[in-house]
Amino acid sequence: MTQPFSYTLLARDGAARRGRMQTAHGAVETPAFMPVGTAATVKAMRPEDVAATGAQIILANTYHLMLRPTAERVAELGGLHRFMNWPGPILTDSGGFQVLSLAKLRKLSESGVAFRSHLDGARFELSPERAIEIQHLLGADISMAFDECTPFPAEEAAAQSSMELSMRWAERSKAAYPARPGHALFGIVQGSVYPELRRRSAEALRAIGFDGYAVGGLAVGEGQATMFAVLDETVPALPEDRPRYLMGVGKPDDLVGAVRRGIDLFDCVLPTRSGRTAQAFTRRGTVNLRNARHAADKRPLDAACGCATCTGYSRAYLHHVVRAGEILASMLLTAHNLRYYADLMAGLRGAIEAGTLDDFAAGFAAEQAEGDIPPL
Amino acid sequence: MTQPFSYTLLARDGAARRGRMQTAHGAVETPAFMPVGTAATVKAMRPEDVAATGAQIILANTYHLMLRPTAERVAELGGLHRFMNWPGPILTDSGGFQVLSLAKLRKLSESGVAFRSHLDGARFELSPERAIEIQHLLGADISMAFDECTPFPAEEAAAQSSMELSMRWAERSKAAYPARPGHALFGIVQGSVYPELRRRSAEALRAIGFDGYAVGGLAVGEGQATMFAVLDETVPALPEDRPRYLMGVGKPDDLVGAVRRGIDLFDCVLPTRSGRTAQAFTRRGTVNLRNARHAADKRPLDAACGCATCTGYSRAYLHHVVRAGEILASMLLTAHNLRYYADLMAGLRGAIEAGTLDDFAAGFAAEQAEGDIPPL
Repeated sequence: MTQPFSYTLLARDGAARRGRMQTAHGAVETPAFMPVGTAATVKAMRPEDVAATGAQIILANTYHLMLRPTAERVAELGGLHRFMNWPGPILTDSGGFQVLSLAKLRKLSESGVAFRSHLDGARFELSPERAIEIQHLLGADISMAFDECTPFPAEEAAAQSSMELSMRWAERSKAAYPARPGHALFGIVQGSVYPELRRRSAEALRAIGFDGYAVGGLAVGEGQATMFAVLDETVPALPEDRPRYLMGVGKPDDLVGAVRRGIDLFDCVLPTRSGRTAQAFTRRGTVNLRNARHAADKRPLDAACGCATCTGYSRAYLHHVVRAGEILASMLLTAHNLRYYADLMAGLRGAIEAGTLDDFAAGFAAEQAEGDIPPL
Repeated sequence: MTQPFSYTLLARDGAARRGRMQTAHGAVETPAFMPVGTAATVKAMRPEDVAATGAQIILANTYHLMLRPTAERVAELGGLHRFMNWPGPILTDSGGFQVLSLAKLRKLSESGVAFRSHLDGARFELSPERAIEIQHLLGADISMAFDECTPFPAEEAAAQSSMELSMRWAERSKAAYPARPGHALFGIVQGSVYPELRRRSAEALRAIGFDGYAVGGLAVGEGQATMFAVLDETVPALPEDRPRYLMGVGKPDDLVGAVRRGIDLFDCVLPTRSGRTAQAFTRRGTVNLRNARHAADKRPLDAACGCATCTGYSRAYLHHVVRAGEILASMLLTAHNLRYYADLMAGLRGAIEAGTLDDFAAGFAAEQAEGDIPPL
């Protein structure tokens, strides 16, 4: 018997929550960061490598997978877990965000979005019903309601009509969603930077009733202070007994600040994309391995990190494989970055349990501010 | 105490030899295939992934490493084993072959080769003395004498003078080589397709005295039948108590044929390069995963293979990641190809021990000839 989907609140520290989310494919300790596996692969990582970083859940993108290899093909092949050989929980987005950022010749209407593929120009349509169907075909543990990610900046009137469209789509998403044990449907709060719109969106979603609540339309250029201000207004309007997911976020200090504001789940391409462009996250800030100052540096990337990259290789070697354009550079740096994110989330979970989150956040910020130690 | 370098002949089947080579960084069961780690990485593989395929020794390229990061830098960083995190045996080539195939504005003289880097046009020189010094700085378990890989085709007179130059360079390589326990210097037989030149080259090298003997200047366009004919003439001229290495070879059937002719060691970029271009080696021949016929194929790449790629993924998934241009495609296919090569070598070793090499070779050829089974 598959256990029902659940969220258990285990501890609190201020607004921050330490919880556990149970899905059909296993439990997720929260707050958690979800590596992004856009096209049914977390880039440059085998699934076992992803799990080894400490990640317990990954995100996959409806837009990319509906274009190639198609949701129907994935379903024929036994679903996304089997297809990509990832046995753990998977969250899929609804495709709306990528349609607006990647597809060509988009046409938005009340029914949904018609667009052309960025790969070959082929015509597609996405609607709440189709987005839910695709996520069902993929076999996602957590499906997302279909929404419009309101562009930033947006006038209040435009933000309102966009949010209201998303709320009508949320209702249609819920109606279309085939509930199954261990599986969940999350609604997405919109409303741009307008507190009243955010609160009305949250209320509308609660009235529909979802298994979890996401905050969308952030990390789109508004800046961290504005994002945090929106969270301060929005998170208290969400139910306490459901997980809260801040979509597309973010940098390490975004995660710390958002966890302190009560967020439980995150996803972002930053650690994986950075891993393919020689950017590494460390306890003392970001490091660019392409920089010549690393060429003779015998030290590990992050002396406090226990990952295989930091225990096995010098900065000089990482610099060498970056300069030589070797695939291994992407593999080693992505693995390190995901481990850094997983360790950060584990640190936040431990601090919430211990009631020491303020100290943890202060220590984190101080260490980041010190910056990288130059080579001898 | 480091054990001395040694080669122990364990069993024979016809001309084929089952042996064990002991180096400062461990033993190598022969016949063995050496994956190529050109720039101090076997492309798309972590060192532990390489070891997991069954490979016990890798090859690294003097030419690439002398340009970047330089041999002196590798030495400062503790040598190549530590630099690239590969604890096992390493063989380095002498750089001569790559200078002739990659470098610009080459100028060959009795003393050596002056050339410009293909990376940035910087001037470099390689001589027997410098090639040996570089390999020493890298910390190679097995160093190769500096030679000229005679181009193919070559008139007999040109092949003779090229071979004689290589023999003078072999003598200088030996004189420059700092012997150390567990480390070896191999000479390289040249002489193009001329049996008499090959025999004279082998005699010249034996007179100098090397820890192992390589056959160079093959797999350069002469075709398999000619290559085998050259081996038939050359291998009997090599000493029985030293390992024999056929450089830059080859396809699976090249390996089988060369092992039957008494070769112990091989290297080739084929399994790794093919892994990055969607080409896979299987017990039933090569398979191109880019081909649309794999798009819905639930079967593993090679049902008889125990590698993580074949046990974890369908051909449909491999096709998907190839088409999507994902790094994972290179990782999974390279891992499979190296495992295929390692399994083939293990099969050859077992057959020699059992005295059933003819049957093994016939079974191998029959299975390869059957070709891939089409999807249902």
